[in-house]
Amino acid sequence: MKELGYSTERIELNGSRFLLSNGYMGYRGTLEEAGKEDLVACTLSGLYDQAGTGWREPVNAPNGFYTVLSYQGQPLQPRAIEPATHEQQLVIRSALHRRKTTFALADNRIEIATERFLSSADVHLMALEYRFRSTEVGTVMVDTGIDADVWDLNGPHFREVSFQAAGSSLTATALTNEGQVVAVATMVAGLNGQGATLQREQAVLNRWTIPAEAGREYCFYKYVAVYTSADPECTAGRDPATVAVEGVRHAAEIGYAKLYARHHACWAERWPRSEVVIKGDPEAELALDYSIYHLLAAAPSHTEKASIPARGLSGQTYKGAIFWDTELFMLPFFIYTQPQLARGLLRYRYHTLDGARRKAAEYGYRGAFYAWESQETGDDACTYFNVTDVFSERPLRTYFRDKQIHISADIAYGIWQYYLVTGDESILFDGGAEIILETARFYYSYAYFKKDKNRYELLDVTGPDEYHERVANNAFTNYMVKYNLQIALATMCWLKGKDPAYYRAFVERLDLEKDLPGLVEMNDLLYLPKPDQKSGVIEQFDGYLALEDLKLAELKARIKIPHEYLGGGNGLATTTQIIKQADVVALLNLFKTNFSAEVKATNWTYYEPRTEHGSSLSPCVYAMLAAELGKQDWAYRYFLKTATIDLTGAYKRYVGPLYIGGTHPAASGGAWMVAVFGFGGLSFDGVTVCLNPRLPTPWAGLVFNFQVKGQFFTVEITPDQVRVEAGGENTQPIRFEIAGENRLCPQNGELIVAYGK
Amino acid sequence: MKELGYSTERIELNGSRFLLSNGYMGYRGTLEEAGKEDLVACTLSGLYDQAGTGWREPVNAPNGFYTVLSYQGQPLQPRAIEPATHEQQLVIRSALHRRKTTFALADNRIEIATERFLSSADVHLMALEYRFRSTEVGTVMVDTGIDADVWDLNGPHFREVSFQAAGSSLTATALTNEGQVVAVATMVAGLNGQGATLQREQAVLNRWTIPAEAGREYCFYKYVAVYTSADPECTAGRDPATVAVEGVRHAAEIGYAKLYARHHACWAERWPRSEVVIKGDPEAELALDYSIYHLLAAAPSHTEKASIPARGLSGQTYKGAIFWDTELFMLPFFIYTQPQLARGLLRYRYHTLDGARRKAAEYGYRGAFYAWESQETGDDACTYFNVTDVFSERPLRTYFRDKQIHISADIAYGIWQYYLVTGDESILFDGGAEIILETARFYYSYAYFKKDKNRYELLDVTGPDEYHERVANNAFTNYMVKYNLQIALATMCWLKGKDPAYYRAFVERLDLEKDLPGLVEMNDLLYLPKPDQKSGVIEQFDGYLALEDLKLAELKARIKIPHEYLGGGNGLATTTQIIKQADVVALLNLFKTNFSAEVKATNWTYYEPRTEHGSSLSPCVYAMLAAELGKQDWAYRYFLKTATIDLTGAYKRYVGPLYIGGTHPAASGGAWMVAVFGFGGLSFDGVTVCLNPRLPTPWAGLVFNFQVKGQFFTVEITPDQVRVEAGGENTQPIRFEIAGENRLCPQNGELIVAYGK
Repeated sequence: MKELGYSTERIELNGSRFLLSNGYMGYRGTLEEAGKEDLVACTLSGLYDQAGTGWREPVNAPNGFYTVLSYQGQPLQPRAIEPATHEQQLVIRSALHRRKTTFALADNRIEIATERFLSSADVHLMALEYRFRSTEVGTVMVDTGIDADVWDLNGPHFREVSFQAAGSSLTATALTNEGQVVAVATMVAGLNGQGATLQREQAVLNRWTIPAEAGREYCFYKYVAVYTSADPECTAGRDPATVAVEGVRHAAEIGYAKLYARHHACWAERWPRSEVVIKGDPEAELALDYSIYHLLAAAPSHTEKASIPARGLSGQTYKGAIFWDTELFMLPFFIYTQPQLARGLLRYRYHTLDGARRKAAEYGYRGAFYAWESQETGDDACTYFNVTDVFSERPLRTYFRDKQIHISADIAYGIWQYYLVTGDESILFDGGAEIILETARFYYSYAYFKKDKNRYELLDVTGPDEYHERVANNAFTNYMVKYNLQIALATMCWLKGKDPAYYRAFVERLDLEKDLPGLVEMNDLLYLPKPDQKSGVIEQFDGYLALEDLKLAELKARIKIPHEYLGGGNGLATTTQIIKQADVVALLNLFKTNFSAEVKATNWTYYEPRTEHGSSLSPCVYAMLAAELGKQDWAYRYFLKTATIDLTGAYKRYVGPLYIGGTHPAASGGAWMVAVFGFGGLSFDGVTVCLNPRLPTPWAGLVFNFQVKGQFFTVEITPDQVRVEAGGENTQPIRFEIAGENRLCPQNGELIVAYGK
Repeated sequence: MKELGYSTERIELNGSRFLLSNGYMGYRGTLEEAGKEDLVACTLSGLYDQAGTGWREPVNAPNGFYTVLSYQGQPLQPRAIEPATHEQQLVIRSALHRRKTTFALADNRIEIATERFLSSADVHLMALEYRFRSTEVGTVMVDTGIDADVWDLNGPHFREVSFQAAGSSLTATALTNEGQVVAVATMVAGLNGQGATLQREQAVLNRWTIPAEAGREYCFYKYVAVYTSADPECTAGRDPATVAVEGVRHAAEIGYAKLYARHHACWAERWPRSEVVIKGDPEAELALDYSIYHLLAAAPSHTEKASIPARGLSGQTYKGAIFWDTELFMLPFFIYTQPQLARGLLRYRYHTLDGARRKAAEYGYRGAFYAWESQETGDDACTYFNVTDVFSERPLRTYFRDKQIHISADIAYGIWQYYLVTGDESILFDGGAEIILETARFYYSYAYFKKDKNRYELLDVTGPDEYHERVANNAFTNYMVKYNLQIALATMCWLKGKDPAYYRAFVERLDLEKDLPGLVEMNDLLYLPKPDQKSGVIEQFDGYLALEDLKLAELKARIKIPHEYLGGGNGLATTTQIIKQADVVALLNLFKTNFSAEVKATNWTYYEPRTEHGSSLSPCVYAMLAAELGKQDWAYRYFLKTATIDLTGAYKRYVGPLYIGGTHPAASGGAWMVAVFGFGGLSFDGVTVCLNPRLPTPWAGLVFNFQVKGQFFTVEITPDQVRVEAGGENTQPIRFEIAGENRLCPQNGELIVAYGK
């Protein structure tokens, strides 16, 4: 992925587009000489801080890559000197960032070329190779060090930063408002001597003054190590700065090339398992590769105590919080291609179960009410006033936090999907069963019984469509909760059969005995909005169909102020049928076998023109169902919209004055799902792998890899044939149903089935 | 009640201050020469019309009093010529309007003095006595007729007006958009000849040209009759114009003096029954007299199919609709002093029961859900967008209509109070029982059962405090509904004992059999928010106490645009503990015996500083409870605020751009309640009349009249003694408890009890 030319207007976008990350930290695609005005950020996963009464958000570490070249005293910074040529590149398959910039100064041309990566082998390490060349003789000054004057949305988060310099090794130790320590150590190799040390107010630098020869390429390396007091390496009395200095020294000893080789090996191992090849459509292929890159880059492999935030590690947007996006939009990719990472994401939810219990108790409920915005403890980072009204310029009461109850069920759903697809029963013992039961219990305590109708109802909720808050019986929510109840009862049966002693202890520990009859009854009597007998439309929530029905364009014509929020108390969409994102259609996608093709088509057709796609979670859902329904053009259009979102930057950057830019890993996960579930037609119920291919017109072929129950498969789809190849190390045959044809795929064999025509 | 001096700025206010009305129509206190720019209105009771998609509102009849005097060709209109002297008077005890204006033109002074009334003996009639005198000789032109160019808030309502002139008799026949006919006939007596007829586009006039002698007083009379196609007189094929012409001819025959005598006799009969005398405080006395005047003037005595709108008959504000104001704020006055009128007001609710049934069905409920804004059919005139947001200038979704469910219980409460106090059992047979059961049934179908807590709850409601919409378990609402359930069960028991055959037919007709067990269970298990065990505060609704707690002045300091609505989705008060009006305190007032004095005091003290009194229903409630609690200074202050509201005009005229001015009969009823229930300490439980006097400091004495079970009493309270005098025609002794002392008041005797000290 490469871009030519430089424009300050693209700095914000490219920071996300060329993002590197390794699950522990993300480093935005900014240039080495950039400062916070360019939105440089090295965003840490799982370390949050609150400044004053501002929003609690992830901490951006001091910038260890910071390097400015000067020629004859003139700093070479694109904001000051328009580059003569510029190119920036992200090597997707190895998570490598490159830039090459030429500055013209009088008759001289100075070229800077760098390459950098965040190690996936050792997630605390970053490494930079820095080359430069001047066509003329002159004095080049290399200022490189650590810039602690970091970009923050709701900062500053450092109440104190101290710097140490020991030769070409520098250290910055920052203390956050909440008392956490972030240490960054750097070491430079390849330049003569140690350089002078420059101490500035919020930075420490080494300066090398080099009489550059004409046309000679100079090259140096910079190693950066980042540790925090929250890291396990720093918990036994070892301070992060010491650990970081050790880390960076060790890295310098190993050297750039070997460090890169280790990093690359990680990617070389991961990539084939997740790889998808689209034949005949390079644009789609690139976009999907790029999406997969972001998913793999964002997933924490070093810990089970973090998960993937809604904007990955591209900054502090959305408080660096983990949303339901992870379980419903990213998790499927990991379940089918990187189950170990999937397991880690789910284990994060177990580590934050107590936070969910606290949230339930806070609102007077029992069980676990998961956070809409979850940080490291599981307590909800979401405020009650999450949006600013552009008219009155006052904070606007939103109900994301207290009413979007479906998130608990989404997590339970994710656990069960993981268990079904991977066959990994251990997840149930390792917290999965507990989450499923505690979320079911939460719903029981949340629900009301309508005696007049002999049914349980879920009132005063917000579904996926956030433009309609505080509604009753949101179809999506009710079906998800029903599923949560079903799997809670299934889990109990399964546990009882599997390990009666464990079951008894489990029931006792969670005090479940008295709740089980209630769960059984609620499972029987929970109201599920059904398709209307005449129209086939499933009403999104009670009263939705009575709202003003108008075209999206008509609604948009009413907008008076750009970025005005369409939901909330007075929002333009609130009193209409215009919805923010897939809601009923999301339900139809998740419960494919519950609804006829006719009902799916009817509802897709009803809701599609009424959907604003104000969320990046939306287009992929419409795409998946469109693919299933044979609407290949629609599916392809929405697929591209989803897969290219972070490439083109065609997304909302602001809601009112609130910045919401960054990467969209849920859309990335959505892109993979559209390709594999939608066009590939893959599904697995725990027994049979189904493949119902429906390639879009431009595609000559689709190849993807997945695993179920520990068995690997490569599927190659052409417009008239499906070929399944079992992995060489598979241990059992797996049953397939391909385009309706039921076949057993031999342990290490293959299947070829013709379809279509 | 008199005002000296003229100011165009007071036209709007004085239109309401000097309002005449007789229950059939209201005529604003404007001058005879005024047109619609002065907000002249002859507002009809019970006749509504919708123009286009505007709000449906009462029709203003063509102005039959319209009269302009000219001197030497110069029209004498205060807007054009500043009057030299001006006075306007309302004779409260006889519902008579007077004005006297002197215009100075060069050396001449022309005086106009008029007197007018809306007959309470024949509610279709209005009469005007018009006198004028010029100090110099000159030509005076009298233009008098019918002006059909009427003031409308949401008009025009006449799609067609036709005029007839027959001598000095004129007729205007107007056809409303909904096809109703409004006919106004006038006749002038006392001027020579017939006058010339002038036909203008929207008016018809007679003109008399009079060579006025210097200093001579001229006098003429004008009779006006108003009939509509909705009147019973016009239903049997008789057209309103014909009936009106007959009416006005008949009136002219009778003559002004006799007509006035008949009108006055009605007031002379009514007044003593309702009279309250305050000794030693003329300001309070006037304000209370004035309040009683408005109540008596607004009540329809001619029909049971109309009731008293929230702004009386002072115009079209609030769609001329009947709110819960009537039952909870006006009805007590009528129950205790004019029970026949009280019965009529309740019968109106029976005539509109089908509308309430339709509303319940519209929202998927059973039983009767009474309209927040009730017009002649009982269908709800309230729109979903009842306020305009001043920031976005867009209609604001409000939940008055669909969530303010307490109104059904308020009506049931009113019926039961009427029955208890008057002993008139017939009301239960004549619709009362049916309303009580249908409203109880509505609540059963509305309620949800919380299995986790084994209780019924009332969710998603708006209580009296409209700044907090869509709340759960509003204490006021829950207690009112509990009362509704209790009296529903009591009604059933009573009916069964009283008339078993009627009971059986009643149960069958309303299909009540299967609902009774539910009502019994809900009555047992309905959640009633209790005083907090520590603080004693009753939480207004679930979560209220967790809202931002700030001082009213702090909230007001946040106001950015005058008249901005403090409630609704984004209102300033919505997310705080600032409330619009008495809510918990209203509950404590209605259920005095349910709560200890300590709880009442605690809650009064908690809620008082948090109440904006943004509704005219609020101060009287705080006053009543303050009086009961011995906070006489507070009580007196709020009493004056309530009683003087329409005298001083110290009320909100706008919510956003919405005009809400007019008279406030609920405050008038509140003023009477504060005097009699609060300071007089009157209550009656169906058996014993309690009197616990607590006079405010300025009052040397308080005398009031009331009746219970058909027995009349005059109570005279001085600071240390209570004297009760039974009416001369009483038929039974009544038990009293005066300042704790239990005494039987003999049939026609008296009681004297010392108290205090």
